[in-house]
Amino acid sequence: MNTELISSRVGKLTPYTPGEQPQHRNYIKLNTNENPYPPAPAVIAGCAAYPAEDLRLYPDPASTELREKIAHWYGRSPEEVFVGNGSDEVLSFAFYGFFDPAHGPVLFPEHTYSFYPVYCSYYGLESRRIALTPDFSVDFRPYLEKKEYAGTALPNPNAPTGIAISRKEIRDFLEKSRGDRVMILDEAYVDFGAESCSSLVDRYPNLLVVHTFSKSRSLAGIRIGFALGDPGLIRTLETVKDSFNSYPLDRLSQRLAVLALEDREYFEASLERIVSTRESTAREMRRLGWQVLPSGANFLFARLPGTDGEKLYAFLKNEGILVRHFKQEGISDFLRISIGTEEEMGVFLEKIRNTGGEL
Amino acid sequence: MNTELISSRVGKLTPYTPGEQPQHRNYIKLNTNENPYPPAPAVIAGCAAYPAEDLRLYPDPASTELREKIAHWYGRSPEEVFVGNGSDEVLSFAFYGFFDPAHGPVLFPEHTYSFYPVYCSYYGLESRRIALTPDFSVDFRPYLEKKEYAGTALPNPNAPTGIAISRKEIRDFLEKSRGDRVMILDEAYVDFGAESCSSLVDRYPNLLVVHTFSKSRSLAGIRIGFALGDPGLIRTLETVKDSFNSYPLDRLSQRLAVLALEDREYFEASLERIVSTRESTAREMRRLGWQVLPSGANFLFARLPGTDGEKLYAFLKNEGILVRHFKQEGISDFLRISIGTEEEMGVFLEKIRNTGGEL
Repeated sequence: MNTELISSRVGKLTPYTPGEQPQHRNYIKLNTNENPYPPAPAVIAGCAAYPAEDLRLYPDPASTELREKIAHWYGRSPEEVFVGNGSDEVLSFAFYGFFDPAHGPVLFPEHTYSFYPVYCSYYGLESRRIALTPDFSVDFRPYLEKKEYAGTALPNPNAPTGIAISRKEIRDFLEKSRGDRVMILDEAYVDFGAESCSSLVDRYPNLLVVHTFSKSRSLAGIRIGFALGDPGLIRTLETVKDSFNSYPLDRLSQRLAVLALEDREYFEASLERIVSTRESTAREMRRLGWQVLPSGANFLFARLPGTDGEKLYAFLKNEGILVRHFKQEGISDFLRISIGTEEEMGVFLEKIRNTGGEL
Repeated sequence: MNTELISSRVGKLTPYTPGEQPQHRNYIKLNTNENPYPPAPAVIAGCAAYPAEDLRLYPDPASTELREKIAHWYGRSPEEVFVGNGSDEVLSFAFYGFFDPAHGPVLFPEHTYSFYPVYCSYYGLESRRIALTPDFSVDFRPYLEKKEYAGTALPNPNAPTGIAISRKEIRDFLEKSRGDRVMILDEAYVDFGAESCSSLVDRYPNLLVVHTFSKSRSLAGIRIGFALGDPGLIRTLETVKDSFNSYPLDRLSQRLAVLALEDREYFEASLERIVSTRESTAREMRRLGWQVLPSGANFLFARLPGTDGEKLYAFLKNEGILVRHFKQEGISDFLRISIGTEEEMGVFLEKIRNTGGEL
């Protein structure tokens, strides 16, 4: 085709590669950090009872009821809540809205959510990857040495390592770093074992905390993410959204997300099961000689010393288990393994028990 | 708040203002061109029967089945189909992907879908509004006089006028204009009475035809839009999408949209009803002294000579009928009135029968 038809900025893009979503073969799917348990019973009942005649009407573009429910859950006000079409959209709007290309690079860890560099190239932002420590932790000192930068983006727990950062460390960073640069704290996995910083948003008007319904709330299928922050940041996100697409959340999704927030007991019970399965799986893997990073998320990041990560990935896929492998220097020996049900992890452990010799 | 926290590009934005979506008072809602009839029976049944346990899983990021169904409907191949979160998202990606700021301004009609100038400012593109003829039609001659431009965007029928453009005129324009600039043809309303140009996409690799499920398919509530075009254009849209948000369409929406495409008979019957109501409403309005532009859409653009448009809007709102008014020079005396049910339009006609003296 005629390359003149395409804007020059597209040539610079290397899109994000989502994990495989096999439509046919029935894998044990431990590759995209989905929740192995279904959404809350109220969500399932609410879907069946939904008056689908109403789908002829546009949704509430401001997602008023959902924002009120989220605010209530976190003890905040609706003016401190923004919702979007998955946390990826929320993050994308935040990169556009808060990071100014003229301010310098966006800072994020060397190994982190691989969409961050993609957003940077999408919006013409420079980026600077900051090395992790040898044990794969985030060290804030090199961030504090930077004086000119557009902002920071950081998942807590970090991905794909799963390692949690304490609230104290994040608070220290916010105290010592520039107050006129936004920090995006991506808490997609926080419910599985890290301390949320959502309570800090009124103290730090430059802190944006981003969450998703895709993991701890078992709703990856309806694409809802949200952000908590100072009303000034939230208004900016609304301006950005209304300059891109006014109605990003559909009627059904808004409704089902509201219902998901009404069942705290179910939410906590499924978190507990996942955390307990994670810990028993990690214990057994270590016993089998694997190096398993400490995880505060619903996945484990692990390697079998002396065995190639890509080969392990292929072996497991062949055995009917999908996990995620990243071809990135420094972590290419690792696999990211989502926590499935107790039963699924039993099958996984069975498969890896004797891999060493076979590969 | 500290303005340093916000990227300088946000300051330049004037967001789109969607039509009111009242959450409380029960208006006769003729303001956002929704379909007055519910989605197809198969959609309603499909929603009730949906296995909501599956919502724990991510959707197919490529919307494979839906793209196949759309391709089949239009007699095209899935490689010629892109889907997005409402046609607004599809349009937004197209402005990013095809219009190069270095090529000059984006051309569109003086009075048209008011999101086009918003996308331009969002992506740092210049724009040039081209005057309509005195009878509010699109005249292609001034477009053909432009030699340096980034591309064109045009709804057919145009909004908010409702006036349809013939396929022959569009084809002529495509023949005579630059083949290395994309024309976005926004066919959101085409099913209500204009000729679709979807069959021209293989002849013109610079033609992108955009559609939505929000109007003729009664599914504004689930946010699905799509584009038909040369596989090269479609691949570009996929690159853009995967650099912004990998999973824009949720599982339920994909499923319900597939079901909507399986009932051609229901689709055609509800179109017929709307067109017939539109024609009888327009006839009666003209009899009452209104100027009503010829409409190929599911709305009428009309004014009562000698009466202020904003006052008419306020009068109708007070009477429980919401219509849309645009405070734009040249059209501020007009109202855009969506076509409701036969009954709703009866109430509307009743209200306007004696307005002249009251205002």
